[in-house]
Amino acid sequence: MPAPAEIRVLALGRFPEVVPGMDLVALIRTAAAEVAFAFQAGDILVVTQKIVSKAEGALVDLTTVEPSDLAQRWAAAWSKDARQIEVVLRESKHIVRMLNGVLITETHGGFICANAGVDASNVGGQDIVCLLPRDPDGSAAALRATLSAELGFDLPVIISDSFGRAWRHGIINVAIGLSGLAAVTDYRGQTDAHGYLLSASILAVADELAAAAELIMGKLDGRPVAVIRGYAYDPAEGSGRDLIMDPARDLFR
Amino acid sequence: MPAPAEIRVLALGRFPEVVPGMDLVALIRTAAAEVAFAFQAGDILVVTQKIVSKAEGALVDLTTVEPSDLAQRWAAAWSKDARQIEVVLRESKHIVRMLNGVLITETHGGFICANAGVDASNVGGQDIVCLLPRDPDGSAAALRATLSAELGFDLPVIISDSFGRAWRHGIINVAIGLSGLAAVTDYRGQTDAHGYLLSASILAVADELAAAAELIMGKLDGRPVAVIRGYAYDPAEGSGRDLIMDPARDLFR
Repeated sequence: MPAPAEIRVLALGRFPEVVPGMDLVALIRTAAAEVAFAFQAGDILVVTQKIVSKAEGALVDLTTVEPSDLAQRWAAAWSKDARQIEVVLRESKHIVRMLNGVLITETHGGFICANAGVDASNVGGQDIVCLLPRDPDGSAAALRATLSAELGFDLPVIISDSFGRAWRHGIINVAIGLSGLAAVTDYRGQTDAHGYLLSASILAVADELAAAAELIMGKLDGRPVAVIRGYAYDPAEGSGRDLIMDPARDLFR
Repeated sequence: MPAPAEIRVLALGRFPEVVPGMDLVALIRTAAAEVAFAFQAGDILVVTQKIVSKAEGALVDLTTVEPSDLAQRWAAAWSKDARQIEVVLRESKHIVRMLNGVLITETHGGFICANAGVDASNVGGQDIVCLLPRDPDGSAAALRATLSAELGFDLPVIISDSFGRAWRHGIINVAIGLSGLAAVTDYRGQTDAHGYLLSASILAVADELAAAAELIMGKLDGRPVAVIRGYAYDPAEGSGRDLIMDPARDLFR
């Protein structure tokens, strides 16, 4: 009798407060050792963008920011920090919605999210905000290269962040950068058990992996890293950009 | 030394083709037995809407459908089946976007998704389409009641479907109905390790559980059911409607 197939979402130990210049690989090594965790071939490492951005120094000291007129007016109207709004505008390629105190923009990297991903929580200073990593795929590739060399097998990496969605309440984790696995599984051209040709079946599996990882990370638990074990990922090289809808096909920009 | 915390996503055995009137609980029992799977207290059952809709008979025979003018024109312009478009229009409360061959609508149940959730894949007949369950929370509650009574402990149930998203490529599993657990975790009012008050931190955990379940279901693997084990869910009674953004706050309708 076959055993049930399973995928495991594993937590490592606690992380310290990450500050610019810290070696994330060393922190991951320590957090793994804390709970006697050993990576295995086939594992996928999911890392929240917050510690990546902090380690890379993608932080802005708001005391150095001179808000523009637009930032000042919007902040005054909606009781926001004008300096933080200015950072959001600087991080934005275009504004998707600016209404009712909500600012949804396209980042220079092409992600559409609230406040261009600029975030003041879990940053560690009243006047410091955190930006998205400059190159999330590159951050994932660097972690993957060092960890894979140490381990002697390939360890794909996903950089995750929690984004809001149109139409649905609440935020969920998604993948903004990745290395060592495909971002999507494309079932188009395959047929179901009845011979019906699947036409709209591209699964955003990296987003689903990021969402699964969030379940064990928790928002306040100080677990910025998780490992997915047992998922038969496609090792074709993907990118966080693969998960951005083609602007020409996107009806909600 | 503490063991790493973990969440497991477990598959049951294969399901037969589900047809109207079938007893899903009996099918779940058989699929569990096939892989010697025993439910445990704390498990969460995730069931795809497709088998729920089929068992409940939420199917439409397209040979009985008379397409309206609008359905005929749209179908002709975009090489669609006018009868299927007519079913989409009937399942819709309002049209969110109708452009470039894409039809995104709000269903009578309040979900915003492509084609009002009407789907021809994995249905089992060239002229049959599948609708969303009439009452996904009710479907979840019925499965939960029967299974919990059999098991002697509470088994929360999530009904999932795969939805597209604005801005992001690919579909992911989300929760459209649930019973026995909260749909979201609300961190608002809590402070992070630095004393920063979290303001925009409502996690759509039922959507993340649905996404995690999809990783083991697979689109073509005939696994319409998965079990999540080890997730410390909030047993407060939730609803799939909790995951729909308040229309008054939704900037993308």
